[in-house]
Amino acid sequence: MDTAILAANEAFYDAFRREDPEAMDEIWAQHAPVACIHPGWNALLGRDRVMASWRAIMENGAPPIRCVAPRVQRLGEVALVICEEHAGGGRLIATNAFVHEDGQWRIVHHHAGPIASGDQDTAAADAPHGLN
Amino acid sequence: MDTAILAANEAFYDAFRREDPEAMDEIWAQHAPVACIHPGWNALLGRDRVMASWRAIMENGAPPIRCVAPRVQRLGEVALVICEEHAGGGRLIATNAFVHEDGQWRIVHHHAGPIASGDQDTAAADAPHGLN
Repeated sequence: MDTAILAANEAFYDAFRREDPEAMDEIWAQHAPVACIHPGWNALLGRDRVMASWRAIMENGAPPIRCVAPRVQRLGEVALVICEEHAGGGRLIATNAFVHEDGQWRIVHHHAGPIASGDQDTAAADAPHGLN
Repeated sequence: MDTAILAANEAFYDAFRREDPEAMDEIWAQHAPVACIHPGWNALLGRDRVMASWRAIMENGAPPIRCVAPRVQRLGEVALVICEEHAGGGRLIATNAFVHEDGQWRIVHHHAGPIASGDQDTAAADAPHGLN
């Protein structure tokens, strides 16, 4: 099941890279409540505001963003994916939340923010596989 | 049910303010996988690393942190709480994820990061109540 979640996470970054607002729209949940915190922004709550923000960001030109080292935190019918975002030499850390809706994993929350220059290692974990 | 989720969220900030590692330990999930992203840090995955980070942070002296404008994003047996964190004149934005475990809401993920000075408004929402 983690494979499908990771595929949904990668589809999110792929839509962002391709600056494809229709693909981005399809990836976000249609029924569950959604929210988004872009780097340095306050929270955007609700589908209308979230999708408007993505359209505006992509119209201004998306960075060549890559998702690195995604890890799945499975919580029943909800999954969090924690990953680094690399773009143009910069590194961010992101939390992406997904729900299983209409037979597919759709994103309901994205929160990305900076990693300080002194803490650039790949995510530390207690065990090589799994979060606990 | 949102009342219980918001109470769990406030208990998390209360334990942080009181620099109480035992209370902090009780608030975090015992069974579900946990993760934490402190401001500017990379992700910490797994209970041992997350709890060690809280003990270290609280030993160094916790800031007088206040949770402001919490909003619940309910996803079945999982809930996300999005809130601002105010401490010493600074503002952060946080995502806190909770699961219902052993009859109570326990935190499984905390992600906090800066709000840029140009985006200080309280979280924007489509509707005054509810996220969607």
